[in-house]
This record gives sequence, C-alpha cells and structure tokens, in this order.
Amino acid sequence: MPHYTALVTLLAVLLYFYTGILVAKARGKFGVKAPATTGNPDFERVFRVQMNTLEWMPIFLPVLWLFALYVNDWGAAALGLIWIVGRIIYISGYTQAADKRHHGFSIQAFATIALFIGAVGGIVWRMMHGG
Amino acid sequence: MPHYTALVTLLAVLLYFYTGILVAKARGKFGVKAPATTGNPDFERVFRVQMNTLEWMPIFLPVLWLFALYVNDWGAAALGLIWIVGRIIYISGYTQAADKRHHGFSIQAFATIALFIGAVGGIVWRMMHGG
Amino acid sequence: MPHYTALVTLLAVLLYFYTGILVAKARGKFGVKAPATTGNPDFERVFRVQMNTLEWMPIFLPVLWLFALYVNDWGAAALGLIWIVGRIIYISGYTQAADKRHHGFSIQAFATIALFIGAVGGIVWRMMHGG
Repeated sequence: MPHYTALVTLLAVLLYFYTGILVAKARGKFGVKAPATTGNPDFERVFRVQMNTLEWMPIFLPVLWLFALYVNDWGAAALGLIWIVGRIIYISGYTQAADKRHHGFSIQAFATIALFIGAVGGIVWRMMHGG
Repeated sequence: MPHYTALVTLLAVLLYFYTGILVAKARGKFGVKAPATTGNPDFERVFRVQMNTLEWMPIFLPVLWLFALYVNDWGAAALGLIWIVGRIIYISGYTQAADKRHHGFSIQAFATIALFIGAVGGIVWRMMHGG
Repeated sequence: MPHYTALVTLLAVLLYFYTGILVAKARGKFGVKAPATTGNPDFERVFRVQMNTLEWMPIFLPVLWLFALYVNDWGAAALGLIWIVGRIIYISGYTQAADKRHHGFSIQAFATIALFIGAVGGIVWRMMHGG
C-alpha cells in the first residue's frame, strides 16, 4: 500500500471538507439561507471555491492513485502536496476577489497534469513490459 | 478484497443515484425545467439534497476505503451502513423542510469522522510497524 | 492491476475535464462572469453538462473499478468506453438544445447499469465461493 499517498489523500479530503465549512460560515455572514446559493457576490465566490474543489476531486484523486500504483508512492504524495498548497492559495485568493483565483489554480492544475502524464506513462510502460 | 465494503459502496452509490431521481421527479412536480436549478424553494431543497450528497461522496468513499484497507472490512462496512442510514434520514427530512435536515446530517457526519480517524490511525500504525 | 480499466479511467477523467473547459469558453462567449452560473440559457446548458458529468463520476468510477476487480479488466474497460461514447453524444446534444440530451444520456446510463449489475454479481459470487 502507498502509505504517503494515503495520508495525502486524507489531507486533501480534509481541505476539501474545510471549503464546505467556509460556505456554512459565509451563509451566516452574508445572510444567504439554505437552500439558496445565489444572491450575494461575496457568498457566491466562497460557494464557487467549494464547487470548484468538488469539481476537481474526481480528477485529482484518480490520477493521484494511478500515479501512486503505477509509478511510485513518494512522487504521488509530493505532487499531491503541491496540489494541496495550490488549493490553499486558490481558496485564500478567490474568497478575497474573483481576479485573485488564478495563481493558486495554476499550481494545482500543474500538479494534476504532472500526475496525469506520469500515470499514463506508468500504465503504458507496465503494459509493454508485462506484469 | 474487502467484500462487505464493496457491497456497502454499491449501496451508497445507489442511494446517491436515487437523490438524482428525486430531482428529476421534482422538476416535473414543481415545474422547474432543465437546465434551471432555481425558482421554486421546494425544488431547491430537493436539488440541495442531491448536491450535498454529491459533495460528500469524495469525502465518504476515500475514507471508507482507506479504513477498509488499513483497519478492517467489517468496521468500514458497519460505519458505511450508519452513513447510509444517516443519509436516508437526511433526505427524508430536508425534502420536507430546511430545518429538518440537521438530524440525519449529524449521523452521516459522525460515521464519516469515525472512518477518517480510523483511517489516519491505521495508516500511521502501519507506517510505524512496517509493511 | 487492471491496466485497460486504468487507461479508460484516465480517458473518462480527460473527457470530464473537457466539460470544464467548455464552461470556461462559454463564460466568455455568453458573457457570464465567474462566480455567476446563471443568467443565460445557452451558458446554463453548458454548465449543466459539466455538472451532470460531475454528478455521475462518483457513480461511474466506483462501479467501473469494482467490476474490474471482481469481474474482469476487459469487460470493465469495454463498458467504460461505451460510457465515454455516450457522454460525448450527450455533451454534443445538450450543448445544442435541452431536448437533445436524452440519447447520449441513455447510452452512458446503460453502461453504468451494466457495470453496477456485474459488480454486484462479482462480489456476491466471490463471497459465496470464498477468496
């Protein structure tokens, strides 16, 4: 089992969970009651932070684990940590202003692309060399 | 392979799928045509039930499987069933009124936290004891 | 490891990622600035394409992998490819008109149901025959 990747997975899940807590807090702060998700631009940005992180989970987790299983645990965990750092910068930026979302977003996208390419390489290599 | 966890996974996927059917039915009942997702508070609550369950899938499934692989199959499956029961109560409550969503929500959150803590413990224990 | 299923997973992730690019493009084309997700029906359909694909990822990926691990790699990969073809037809249809979303949707739903039933059968068979 890839232990470091397993721990990074739990860290990523925790960060994603935290974006949900931010939305719950923003509901109170900006007076947007559930089930509404629109009506106040400051709330909507916090909501989009959660949604965008949600949108990337089914991309990030599969490539993270395919990299871990086909390439190695350490590499997957390191790129996973870069993804998490990028997400933290993204969350901090986007909750301030829509224009400040790009920097952190690029970092987590870079980590995801690296995991993707590594996973493709690892799978193809394994298919060609058997096992 | 953790067979019980595999079965509970399919059960959870089925329940989540059912929240999508509820939304499709609510579209007809409350006259909210796709692609709209707002305009009627009764529809919006049903839509939020599906969305919230979707939001929790990338939390629940990873912690369920890390618990199953690092702790044991039976424990993961039992906590997974508690999560499903909590979700059923949540769905039944929230589709009636926004205030009735808290009870079932707490149950599924408790099961998720237990899976998370167990998974962390299992991974750290395995790292320290090798293998 | 089920290599073909791993490759089909990356293909499905890529297609899902592409629905996010379509939304980013549609923001520019129809003048719907982030964080808004409503206001223009043409944009809303593209947004719903991404959302619906997101909604199905936590259904599709678990049943795909449980089928691969409990039945076989080839079958999972073949049904996964049918799912991807269905999704391409769905994307192409729904971005044109809301009424054109049903054909591709049915194809990907059929593939998902086949994966689900196969996975249930595989797990139960393995439980009864041990191992």
